[in-house]
Amino acid sequence: MAQHSSLPGFRDFYPRDFATRAHIFSAWREAARRFGFEEYDGPPLEALELYTDKSGEEIVRQLYNFVDKGGREVALRPEMTPTFARMVGARAGELRKPIRWFSIPQLFRYERTQRGRLREHFQWNVDIVGEEGVAADAEVVAVALEALCLLGLTEADVVVRLSDRRLMERLLLHAGVPADQLMAAYAAIDKLGRVEERVIRERLETEAGLGPASVDEVFRIFRLGELSALEGAYREVEGVAEELDRLAEFFRIVDDMGLGGFVTFDPTIVRGLAYYTGIVFEIFDRQGVFRAICGGGRYDTLLEAVSGVSLPALGFGMGDVVLKELLADRGLVPEGGAGVDFYLAAVGEEERRVVRRVASRLRSQGYSVLYSLRPAGVRAQLKDADARGARRVVVVGPDEVRSGEVVVREMATGAEERVRLEEL
Amino acid sequence: MAQHSSLPGFRDFYPRDFATRAHIFSAWREAARRFGFEEYDGPPLEALELYTDKSGEEIVRQLYNFVDKGGREVALRPEMTPTFARMVGARAGELRKPIRWFSIPQLFRYERTQRGRLREHFQWNVDIVGEEGVAADAEVVAVALEALCLLGLTEADVVVRLSDRRLMERLLLHAGVPADQLMAAYAAIDKLGRVEERVIRERLETEAGLGPASVDEVFRIFRLGELSALEGAYREVEGVAEELDRLAEFFRIVDDMGLGGFVTFDPTIVRGLAYYTGIVFEIFDRQGVFRAICGGGRYDTLLEAVSGVSLPALGFGMGDVVLKELLADRGLVPEGGAGVDFYLAAVGEEERRVVRRVASRLRSQGYSVLYSLRPAGVRAQLKDADARGARRVVVVGPDEVRSGEVVVREMATGAEERVRLEEL
Repeated sequence: MAQHSSLPGFRDFYPRDFATRAHIFSAWREAARRFGFEEYDGPPLEALELYTDKSGEEIVRQLYNFVDKGGREVALRPEMTPTFARMVGARAGELRKPIRWFSIPQLFRYERTQRGRLREHFQWNVDIVGEEGVAADAEVVAVALEALCLLGLTEADVVVRLSDRRLMERLLLHAGVPADQLMAAYAAIDKLGRVEERVIRERLETEAGLGPASVDEVFRIFRLGELSALEGAYREVEGVAEELDRLAEFFRIVDDMGLGGFVTFDPTIVRGLAYYTGIVFEIFDRQGVFRAICGGGRYDTLLEAVSGVSLPALGFGMGDVVLKELLADRGLVPEGGAGVDFYLAAVGEEERRVVRRVASRLRSQGYSVLYSLRPAGVRAQLKDADARGARRVVVVGPDEVRSGEVVVREMATGAEERVRLEEL
Repeated sequence: MAQHSSLPGFRDFYPRDFATRAHIFSAWREAARRFGFEEYDGPPLEALELYTDKSGEEIVRQLYNFVDKGGREVALRPEMTPTFARMVGARAGELRKPIRWFSIPQLFRYERTQRGRLREHFQWNVDIVGEEGVAADAEVVAVALEALCLLGLTEADVVVRLSDRRLMERLLLHAGVPADQLMAAYAAIDKLGRVEERVIRERLETEAGLGPASVDEVFRIFRLGELSALEGAYREVEGVAEELDRLAEFFRIVDDMGLGGFVTFDPTIVRGLAYYTGIVFEIFDRQGVFRAICGGGRYDTLLEAVSGVSLPALGFGMGDVVLKELLADRGLVPEGGAGVDFYLAAVGEEERRVVRRVASRLRSQGYSVLYSLRPAGVRAQLKDADARGARRVVVVGPDEVRSGEVVVREMATGAEERVRLEEL
């Protein structure tokens, strides 16, 4: 007797777990629909170089990659953006711009070190291609918030923390960060608030090659924090005014959309991935208990790198795992199964035949119907009906068949109604 | 500039392709709902031995397997039944029987030889666990047919071909097939109609070890074909009467369900997989143009083999690829995208702000709404509205903002209605 189990880090979705997943997916799809995004999908397995070429170092270290039987280097997709960029690039000419697409891929990562951590999750990906203006940035932030609101979360629960790599680049260059060390600086800054300042200072010095004065200036920028404070201190620095004005326009649009209370500027949001080029954002629970629920931003150069087609683009990914934890924490995960509309109980063998006929008719009308697949006592059948969440129960016995009338019992209220069998 | 493409045998689902896939999935889910089946899912990656232990030779030859970075032998799932059996086995005690579950996994296979063939597909899996009687077999056949009917197929389009391994075992033993060569005999018979009789005869002799007289008897059984002819010739053979009666009961139930016209006995249906133990079936297009749309059957011993829990079980898998080909052939694939409920066009910058406010309100009411993310002429916006399938268009200019009234134009009819902006 063999005893099998799932691989470490992979989830089984029993019907109750699946129902929660379906609840989240349904909010994602409904928000995307309201915003006019179309669903697409790509393969869960891609050529390894799709990821090694252009993604950030962190993604590549965690790749679930292998050599297939044909000697090809392949990887289970760790993120959707490279697939998205590949697909858009292949048909860029014929697709109407801006392209508004979304997908709900299962993503994979392999970390040898961290046991107990999931190696797969589902992620809602929403992207717009072909639009440079900040109205597009506001649009993707808004659709992310729409889904969270559909799930019952409010301004009191979640916050969008947002920055702009173009602004930060101007400020960091001003602080003395060499142009070719910006990514190293972002990577160090990305850890702010999560690791000791001392460690970040050290990384800025050793990895980004900054002198002590530059490090001090970098820390000053991040301590100012507020957009207005940055404006006061740095508006005259070359290129900064333009970036501040762009961010101001973004916030005006977000206000127009009624979402101002959800969104806040935070210069420490830089995002780990190398390919971001503009506004970047993450969504967190306000209390700061959970990891980020969602992260995204503008990646205006990735499409050209992946597919040779130069088009501005932006989007985000929202995973199912942290979101589910937050919903559970707020009591926002619906309980109980779907149940069924009818349970038809049969007294004897002849009535079982009637039940099959009636069940087929009700099902073809769109009702969900269950009945016992084997002969059973009426009491056992009623117990089964109850356990399976039947909303209405009908008992069919010889009398009912003779008279052609049955009693339909509403389980929630106990109300009973006589109905002609052929009208059921 | 790197140019990437998807791996051979893997599909990209652009929005139009995704819509067809969603149309099929939606029929699968609706049929399952009507029959009271609950959705589950398992990991796309499983331990290799889950498949090598118990599945048929054909599945294992085509496994998409590899060694992961932790040195573990793993495989992308080639079929769902082993995962299903593993999951049910792990919680068999607490799950209400009969268990009625379904899933829509993406499945994978790797064949080195056949280029151009798909290496992934989606498959609707429906299973019942804990019920021995043929009413359960009828139930799974019926839910498969419900989905096909929801997609617009009829008795004129599809047929369920069905046999019973228990009956065939009795007949083959009678014909002189050794008990330990039954699987080899099934594997040879499975090719009937697809390869020359001479080849099958040879396989029965060499692989199943039959003498010429036994081979003749095996061919006689399959030539008789009809259940009534088999009854006339073999009813007196030990154990055959019982099996014939069971099949007769199955057909009576299918008739009660109004599905008699869909289902026909066919002794050549044996199914490739080793684990089937009772009624087996495949669904084909009547004209015999396509490969099987669906295949399944009873596998009463698999759960014990996989999980140590002894429970009768049965189910089927229906793939998306052949089904889509058949639907396309019959003109049953819906054309056109979902479109959007509203397209809001703005004349100037001030009206763009109004449009954002109105769009947010309409979206929160459940409407799908698009507007231009950049300033554009009204003509360009109306063209965009048309291209994106907007059902209603509203133009907001200075006059509309002043008067507080807009004109809502229904694109299908050209009908126009004046509506107060705040009531939109």
